[in-house]
Amino acid sequence: MDERPIGVFDSGLGGLTTVRELRRLLPGEDIVYFGDTGRVPYGGRSAETIVKYARQDVAFLRTFDLKAIVIACGTVSTTALEVLAAENPIPVLGVVAPAAAAAARATKNGRIGLIGTQASIRSGAYERLIQAQNPAAQVLSQPCPLFVPLVENGRFRRGDIVIETVAAEYLAPLREAGVDTLVLGCTHYPLLEEVISAHMGPEVALINAGAEGARAVACALEGADALSARSRGTYRYFVSDRQEDFSHLASIFLGWDVTEAVGQVDISQY
Amino acid sequence: MDERPIGVFDSGLGGLTTVRELRRLLPGEDIVYFGDTGRVPYGGRSAETIVKYARQDVAFLRTFDLKAIVIACGTVSTTALEVLAAENPIPVLGVVAPAAAAAARATKNGRIGLIGTQASIRSGAYERLIQAQNPAAQVLSQPCPLFVPLVENGRFRRGDIVIETVAAEYLAPLREAGVDTLVLGCTHYPLLEEVISAHMGPEVALINAGAEGARAVACALEGADALSARSRGTYRYFVSDRQEDFSHLASIFLGWDVTEAVGQVDISQY
Repeated sequence: MDERPIGVFDSGLGGLTTVRELRRLLPGEDIVYFGDTGRVPYGGRSAETIVKYARQDVAFLRTFDLKAIVIACGTVSTTALEVLAAENPIPVLGVVAPAAAAAARATKNGRIGLIGTQASIRSGAYERLIQAQNPAAQVLSQPCPLFVPLVENGRFRRGDIVIETVAAEYLAPLREAGVDTLVLGCTHYPLLEEVISAHMGPEVALINAGAEGARAVACALEGADALSARSRGTYRYFVSDRQEDFSHLASIFLGWDVTEAVGQVDISQY
Repeated sequence: MDERPIGVFDSGLGGLTTVRELRRLLPGEDIVYFGDTGRVPYGGRSAETIVKYARQDVAFLRTFDLKAIVIACGTVSTTALEVLAAENPIPVLGVVAPAAAAAARATKNGRIGLIGTQASIRSGAYERLIQAQNPAAQVLSQPCPLFVPLVENGRFRRGDIVIETVAAEYLAPLREAGVDTLVLGCTHYPLLEEVISAHMGPEVALINAGAEGARAVACALEGADALSARSRGTYRYFVSDRQEDFSHLASIFLGWDVTEAVGQVDISQY
């Protein structure tokens, strides 16, 4: 039993889709969330910059006495997980290994599609992890740099010609290659599940990296006997830019209304 | 006569459209350009964060012995110009006042449209400057948060259904309001001139803030007898994230091939 909170961070607000899944699985856990809204997005930046930013995000979260840190960001998970895990004495868990494992299990024809940010694709992390478990698997990757800004501007609903056109272009090579499994490798993408599923067809299994990450956290804490005994946890939210828009946007990602106060952090000081 | 270089900065690469105009007007000037690609975009961030980032950008540029600094960024010009001008002993020139003056002169019916980032619109800077020169002018503003990511992803050409749809939505209220002048208040937007002009109609005058800014710099230097006597200047480029993609993207904004080496700067150290 461990009543300390779980720290969760993302480059922005997409990681709240992982918080949503964590609350579903572990309603008794306290969560401290940090979204680096002052420097979002990370997905087009260099590995060096992403590692630097992620270290500061973790340093801020560790001002709380945490039992674990969840990297609720596909880009940081692919690019900085090993460094962060090596540098910190508490477990640091990402979304990539769980999603890669789920994809390796789900595929029947051995052809797995992967969509994510440019940095995530460039890292090659998904390919390595999938092929470690299923050496015959082929991974076809497609960076989707416009998905994050489109989701953040509310363009994620079916029938919106803008997201439908962009999704059709990004997904066509994966559909034509006959993938039977598609990894949504960025925590913003669950909001696009309906759009993506319509383009890929109902027979293609979608793997939600953030949700797989949340399941892995639940297993890890249970295995270490580190779950909380509370029936209901609390939520604290911090961002690195202005707090005004947070409640509105956050509720889209979380699926519930945010009523808590939101803290602002000067992240460059960490 | 002053042979020192002009410093030019932007949140990213959009400001290169101003460098393009500066070279056309002042081919003998040396230019030092800084693009904050590690923290781009600024346009959705708070005023506090924008001022902080802009101070660091100027501090880096001032490691060179400059004769003037040009803020080739609509967002910084609307949000941080006064602070930067007050803090620095060399002239700091933005793109807003020149563009506002050009719009106030150009309008016949007194209805001026303004498109820009959320931060630029929120600042109210254009309204204040336009109405100072033309108190009867009405300014109708429309934030266009998707224009920057769409341009950066190469979606700025006529006939692209994505940019055409987004442009039609953003511009419809301005067209319906009957504006006869439209300020392109962000240095990325000159690449969208054809798309915007097609939606607004040929009778609407488009004011390119970056180009107006470049003209104002040329006048200011000439008035102070501070132009260079060279026939051809040199160009130095610096960015805060990886340099790999710079030459390709920069040549789109500049309209010529970039062959110079590009420097990388740890901007958080300034």
